[in-house]
Amino acid sequence: MRAPASGGATKKPLPDIIAGNGNVYLAIEVKSTSAEHIYINSEKIAGLIEFSAIFGAEPYLGAKFKNKKWRFVHVDDLIRTRGDNYKVDVDLAFSKGLEFDELIKKDKQVKFK
Amino acid sequence: MRAPASGGATKKPLPDIIAGNGNVYLAIEVKSTSAEHIYINSEKIAGLIEFSAIFGAEPYLGAKFKNKKWRFVHVDDLIRTRGDNYKVDVDLAFSKGLEFDELIKKDKQVKFK
Repeated sequence: MRAPASGGATKKPLPDIIAGNGNVYLAIEVKSTSAEHIYINSEKIAGLIEFSAIFGAEPYLGAKFKNKKWRFVHVDDLIRTRGDNYKVDVDLAFSKGLEFDELIKKDKQVKFK
Repeated sequence: MRAPASGGATKKPLPDIIAGNGNVYLAIEVKSTSAEHIYINSEKIAGLIEFSAIFGAEPYLGAKFKNKKWRFVHVDDLIRTRGDNYKVDVDLAFSKGLEFDELIKKDKQVKFK
């Protein structure tokens, strides 16, 4: 489900998308670019992590590079910039990132072993 | 999280609210009234049940009667009308319905015993 564009009762940042399938719940911030890197500021990621902890979801960045498929990168795998923000490039997106189908097939139980 | 008011990529009905706390996930349709009954049409409830099954949430109606507290009634507990729609009255809301705090304290594990 997409977040409302505006008019929320709270000023707290909401993720762009919440997805679930009864097994995995995801809070996703999405970004697309025609450049080589996607930059995300630290407040946005902090908000995504906070929301995910409260709601019970895994925090992901959905990254779309031009002429490439969407990849979903867990916030833990994002690169921290010197300015304390975050970035992801194509190499990272395609090494640590997952396709959406892979993401929702991840078995929640694994985490509790 | 409130559903977007419009502009969804799908014509499928979305619940008014999705809530989660890492243990319980809820899809909620909310209605308030100054009358004695709340009526909800069957398509709305069918949509709520379908969304909940896909997302992995429990489907609830949030009912607010004038001068009464909010109560949350599981769709299974709603009264079916002769016209195949659904209704809830104050008695039902306060017998089978729960307060929000009670709702989110329900242990998900109970369902899988």
